[in-house]
Amino acid sequence: MKKLFFLVILFAACSQDKKGTEPEKANSMKEQFAIVIHGGAGTILKENMTPELEKAYQGGLDRALEAGYAVLEKGGSSVEAVVEAIKVLEDDPHFNAGKGSVFSADGKNEMDASIMDGKNLMAGAVAGVRTIKNPITAARCVMEKSQHVMMVGKGAEEFARTCGCEFADTAYFFDQKRWDQLQKVKDTEQSVLDHGSTSANDLKDKKFGTVGAVALDKNGNLAAATSTGGMTNKKYGRVGDSPIIGAGTYANNKTCGVSCTGHGEFFIRSVVAYDVSSLMEYKGLSVEKAAEEVVMKKLVELKGEGGLIAMDVKGNITMPFNTPGMYRGYMKNGKKEILIYK
Amino acid sequence: MKKLFFLVILFAACSQDKKGTEPEKANSMKEQFAIVIHGGAGTILKENMTPELEKAYQGGLDRALEAGYAVLEKGGSSVEAVVEAIKVLEDDPHFNAGKGSVFSADGKNEMDASIMDGKNLMAGAVAGVRTIKNPITAARCVMEKSQHVMMVGKGAEEFARTCGCEFADTAYFFDQKRWDQLQKVKDTEQSVLDHGSTSANDLKDKKFGTVGAVALDKNGNLAAATSTGGMTNKKYGRVGDSPIIGAGTYANNKTCGVSCTGHGEFFIRSVVAYDVSSLMEYKGLSVEKAAEEVVMKKLVELKGEGGLIAMDVKGNITMPFNTPGMYRGYMKNGKKEILIYK
Repeated sequence: MKKLFFLVILFAACSQDKKGTEPEKANSMKEQFAIVIHGGAGTILKENMTPELEKAYQGGLDRALEAGYAVLEKGGSSVEAVVEAIKVLEDDPHFNAGKGSVFSADGKNEMDASIMDGKNLMAGAVAGVRTIKNPITAARCVMEKSQHVMMVGKGAEEFARTCGCEFADTAYFFDQKRWDQLQKVKDTEQSVLDHGSTSANDLKDKKFGTVGAVALDKNGNLAAATSTGGMTNKKYGRVGDSPIIGAGTYANNKTCGVSCTGHGEFFIRSVVAYDVSSLMEYKGLSVEKAAEEVVMKKLVELKGEGGLIAMDVKGNITMPFNTPGMYRGYMKNGKKEILIYK
Repeated sequence: MKKLFFLVILFAACSQDKKGTEPEKANSMKEQFAIVIHGGAGTILKENMTPELEKAYQGGLDRALEAGYAVLEKGGSSVEAVVEAIKVLEDDPHFNAGKGSVFSADGKNEMDASIMDGKNLMAGAVAGVRTIKNPITAARCVMEKSQHVMMVGKGAEEFARTCGCEFADTAYFFDQKRWDQLQKVKDTEQSVLDHGSTSANDLKDKKFGTVGAVALDKNGNLAAATSTGGMTNKKYGRVGDSPIIGAGTYANNKTCGVSCTGHGEFFIRSVVAYDVSSLMEYKGLSVEKAAEEVVMKKLVELKGEGGLIAMDVKGNITMPFNTPGMYRGYMKNGKKEILIYK
């Protein structure tokens, strides 16, 4: 930390010679880099957790943070960092995204993902994909290799194939616990939300969720990304907020990067991710105040449960949620923190 | 008009006796009702239009306005009014929505629609549906009869069937001109955007678009809705802004109702519909100023072509667009105006 500070000062001094005005601010911003992630919000209570399970979640979040931070440390882009962090969480069956995605009513996985680059407001999203190993790589591919923002279903998979995304069969995505979750609710005609608080007979088994990441790279660029397996027993091609730019994901270097998790329908209706950015841009709120206003007031008034992670262009991080818990963590200036409960 | 004014005065007088304060304002707001619609923005130039075609467009817009206004006049809801107006435009093959939708690369129609109720922020959307006669009725059904906001593909059609939505076969949706449009671009590997200005060799044939409506009912409730056939030759399950709440459609009694039309990708990245609302809510801009800021400045900076219609809760209407033309019109206090060019 001391070393970093010294470097910043040194940088600032050099730069002052060249550019003249406000170099400290510009350069301290450039050296600042950080990543914040979530693994879903919901009825996550200490009393329902075993030490082994807690360790497994913490381990997954830790590996994801390290993967993203390593990219940033080497001078990689925030887009690369959020993708690497999310791939770790998608590959970890404890989280409801990629491998470990919950099952829809027809016994299949339907995954959604999105990503946004705060530098140029480019964005990409896929919804209802079933065979892409890491849906976030497909979302990135839509952003970088197509003229489009959103692709759904088989068309999205066809496009991902042209990008060289890795595919996996249903055996890869199969997870016994997720399958058992489906059998439990299958005949109830109920879709179980990924925060697990609406049909809460057996909270122990309700490890639902979404995963997300927001990163700030050394060049001062923000990126945000979100990935999910949706709801257990979902029907009718339901799509939640995760692949919706403005609702589940948003990034803009002028304001902040945001990734959401919770009861998707409320997050769409509240345009949550962009609302945080709007409150910063139009009302001058800090990222903390803006996120709190949206999650703890506006969403609560609408009875929308969930949370979000957000970071501004100076690396200020906030992780508010209105549920009992949210898997979350950040890494900044070499310091790492991983949290689950309130 | 005189009669209406007399009624308002009468109402105000009665009400003053009962309630005491500011009854004129409250009641004039209650009596105020209006509808505004669009049939797509794009390279719509007088010199490329025949008198017959112009008449056909004007006729479609006129019938849609009358249908929506009739609902409002009878005291019907703004939700009902926007649905009735949009059904007229969906049924009219001149507009790219419902019958008359353009063809995707595989020679089929893929339609999207969304609706939002400003009273309670409820919303519904369908994307990539192929056999629902009026996609807007399916979007309404998702809003009113499901716990979800967005459904895509076959799942959305399955749900629409449970609601009693009317279905139609591919013969119903077939339109020779749309088919010819597809044949022209089929081998170019190009998707043709619904505003038609990017591949403009033959502007005469480029009658692309989206349809939308915003209404204010006698109870002071706003609603907004949008419906589209998307892009000619589109592939990979591409979804534009029309079914995205916050991007193509938004309504909130606190601010305004908005329906967009244009190059969908830019509208998603700019969260256009909600941005108009945010500028009103957080910066105190009027609906005119807010819409102008978004369409004529923010979208133009991003090179996003298109326009929108918006109305605030007092019935103030605005219809900005940054393209040569936009099919548009409104009806308010018995006065009707229909416009095409700048």
